[in-house]
Amino acid sequence: MSEYSTALSEAADRITVALDALLPRADGPEKRLISAMRYAALGPGKRMRPFLLIECGRLVGADERALLRAACAVECVHAYSLVHDDLPSMDNDDLRRGRPTVHKAYDEATAILAGDALQTQAFAILADPETHPDAALRCELVSRLAQAAGARGMAGGQMIDMAIEAGEEREIGVITRCQRMKTGALIAFCAEAGAVLARADKETRTALEGFAHDLGLCYQIVDDLLDVEGDETLTGKRTRKDAGQGKATFVTILGVDGARDRARHLAAQAKEHLVNYGEDAKLLIQTVDYVLDRQS
Amino acid sequence: MSEYSTALSEAADRITVALDALLPRADGPEKRLISAMRYAALGPGKRMRPFLLIECGRLVGADERALLRAACAVECVHAYSLVHDDLPSMDNDDLRRGRPTVHKAYDEATAILAGDALQTQAFAILADPETHPDAALRCELVSRLAQAAGARGMAGGQMIDMAIEAGEEREIGVITRCQRMKTGALIAFCAEAGAVLARADKETRTALEGFAHDLGLCYQIVDDLLDVEGDETLTGKRTRKDAGQGKATFVTILGVDGARDRARHLAAQAKEHLVNYGEDAKLLIQTVDYVLDRQS
Repeated sequence: MSEYSTALSEAADRITVALDALLPRADGPEKRLISAMRYAALGPGKRMRPFLLIECGRLVGADERALLRAACAVECVHAYSLVHDDLPSMDNDDLRRGRPTVHKAYDEATAILAGDALQTQAFAILADPETHPDAALRCELVSRLAQAAGARGMAGGQMIDMAIEAGEEREIGVITRCQRMKTGALIAFCAEAGAVLARADKETRTALEGFAHDLGLCYQIVDDLLDVEGDETLTGKRTRKDAGQGKATFVTILGVDGARDRARHLAAQAKEHLVNYGEDAKLLIQTVDYVLDRQS
Repeated sequence: MSEYSTALSEAADRITVALDALLPRADGPEKRLISAMRYAALGPGKRMRPFLLIECGRLVGADERALLRAACAVECVHAYSLVHDDLPSMDNDDLRRGRPTVHKAYDEATAILAGDALQTQAFAILADPETHPDAALRCELVSRLAQAAGARGMAGGQMIDMAIEAGEEREIGVITRCQRMKTGALIAFCAEAGAVLARADKETRTALEGFAHDLGLCYQIVDDLLDVEGDETLTGKRTRKDAGQGKATFVTILGVDGARDRARHLAAQAKEHLVNYGEDAKLLIQTVDYVLDRQS
């Protein structure tokens, strides 16, 4: 493994351990729900968003403990969104990260409730005084996470995505808006959270948010490329489903080469936002390359 | 209408107007989602929980504006829970408050997302500085609402409820725990929120929480009684579904008379918690009678 892969995988382990401690124990007559929440949140995963949150926060000097807790909150929201997106009435996926999805391993009702309770858990973690002694910062994190996850963020993006899937929306403007909301908003939150916790100045926030914005869109275009070119045994999920559904994506609109060019351009742009940080931003710069070149 | 019904219905209107202003406008390519959120949250309803929150808070001197916003947050969580509980894989209800449920009026995927985004909206409202200038109070509300809604609260209660429905749980202890979590926790939050916003002392909090606890359980027992004895045209939802499913409820365990006795006992006990407030608690006392005698 490269030095970077080692850093990423060590961070993923640290996040999983912290998340394990923050989720309730699977006991009492409600244990089936909690077991499904833990299955969804603690299973294999790159933990890309929490990693990003922690590294952005470190870059600008935020408290380590606060970053780790905020990182766990963002992973709870990400996990909740995957559980609900996989449901039969949504993307209807049986496989996620190489394992049965929650509604397959448990059942549909349990999956809906587990997603619901994971979202709740995220806000519980952020609002807890253990996250940071300053309540104003905690409230700002809650507000920003709610913006990133809500009707004008992740949930709204998933709604648009379904309209695109149904062939009702085919404009590149709508597809870009969809991705900015569906995946970009939560990735941008990761950068914002680090800046909030470090009480960073306007200029720093703008740089981190620009970085996250470009990285988020790059991530999504690579996702679309992987759906076309990816190997199911590597991605751990069903591929070629977009084409099967006749869905408009960055790849169907820009072509494979055009989409790859766009992703490269965004990756370069993302790195430029961090140019003032020099060597300190090394891990984040490597994250951009990792996102661009990933096979899964 | 009685003086009390007038007070309740005026309060319901005031809450609906405030909620309308706090929910996003149904525009943009995500408008289907927002329209479903608004359908779920702004439709007919008694607004019992927000009414309770506002009246408990008034009793102990909390700020009116803060109470109205917290009341809207609690109604968002309540509306989200109804949307998800009505889904085909959960209670599979087609009718709610006399109208098609969200997955019938829209579709299942939209209903799941609308519930998700309503939950998010609740936390967004509470964390906003507009709710109260003191961030510590806002954070405490977020924490308490998350506790009331999460795996050890409403969501966990719904999980247990499904186990009871499947005949896997039949003990009165489990049924009581289920109801304390499923409906009691959110009702208790309403009382707590008023106390938090008024920075009330321990004794006041205990009285209000005891009141809410007893009222919540009373409410649920009356719900079970209405399922057996209620008139579908009055309740606005399908009745006799518990018996049809062979589900253990307070009524199947205690019998109709036993359940009614238990509800009366809880109602009397709820009132006793407010005895020190005299005439000031008149509306809350009337709420207890209303809950006990309601036909819908």
